[in-house]
Amino acid sequence: MDADVRFMKEALKEARKAFLKDEVPVGCVIVKGGKVIARAHNQREGRQDATAHAELLCIKKACKKLGSFRLNGCELYVTLEPCPMCAGAIINARVERAVFGAYDPKAGCCGTLYDLLGCGKFNHTLKAVGGVMEEECSDILKRFFAEKRRAQRELNCLTKGDG
Amino acid sequence: MDADVRFMKEALKEARKAFLKDEVPVGCVIVKGGKVIARAHNQREGRQDATAHAELLCIKKACKKLGSFRLNGCELYVTLEPCPMCAGAIINARVERAVFGAYDPKAGCCGTLYDLLGCGKFNHTLKAVGGVMEEECSDILKRFFAEKRRAQRELNCLTKGDG
Repeated sequence: MDADVRFMKEALKEARKAFLKDEVPVGCVIVKGGKVIARAHNQREGRQDATAHAELLCIKKACKKLGSFRLNGCELYVTLEPCPMCAGAIINARVERAVFGAYDPKAGCCGTLYDLLGCGKFNHTLKAVGGVMEEECSDILKRFFAEKRRAQRELNCLTKGDG
Repeated sequence: MDADVRFMKEALKEARKAFLKDEVPVGCVIVKGGKVIARAHNQREGRQDATAHAELLCIKKACKKLGSFRLNGCELYVTLEPCPMCAGAIINARVERAVFGAYDPKAGCCGTLYDLLGCGKFNHTLKAVGGVMEEECSDILKRFFAEKRRAQRELNCLTKGDG
């Protein structure tokens, strides 16, 4: 199996963990020398922390594991295109390569709204590869938001009933 | 005294703490209702964590304090123009207003290289005010890097002496 697909499947496992915790299902793994050295999923709601995106948490774990703020030779796999915060963290950590699944028209900063990783303006530049297992990565997000909307509709009906 | 100057002085106190720990001296405070609710300084080297910039740490603390990932009605003061990661975190946390001291030609994303906060592409837009106490905020950084260079020169001399 293609290495990118293999590691994106690992990132999807993390996204599923987020789904089960009622978090927007985004998962991330960081790979060095062909091995996963850190894994994390979005925990913004549970922690009530605006910085607790999957990539941020994963980069923190990888830094701790390697004992360095420089993730030289590391590849990052994430199920959704990184937002500006996470793209910036990828640059700051000097990640060598970033691979994402679904494109994000609302906040994607690895080609969609901006190309922060590849623009050459910062002290570290890298290439992002998008669309790996795009359908699976996108489907879990669609399912999550469909469930949220259904729950909201049910709540609205109940509230109407109360009135 | 002007409120922006008053709070930037608080951010500078944090930058000085970073200086004393041999960290790039950047400090940040978050203000709500005229009161400082969180303060932090850069700790990238000490923690060996690429995400441990002053703003990121300060936003995490403010979220914890308010019990919410949304920092509605909050103002952020930082001594150096935020990088893409920190500008993204400011957007994600829905900070109402951002004020910075020195401009950053290498990574500044609040007007210098990009204007991520004000561009209107994301789900939250805010205005950044730059140049508040610019000289003081810039001076502490210049002193830090001058000391670093001097120490490096001395090390080079010693190493030559060894040869």
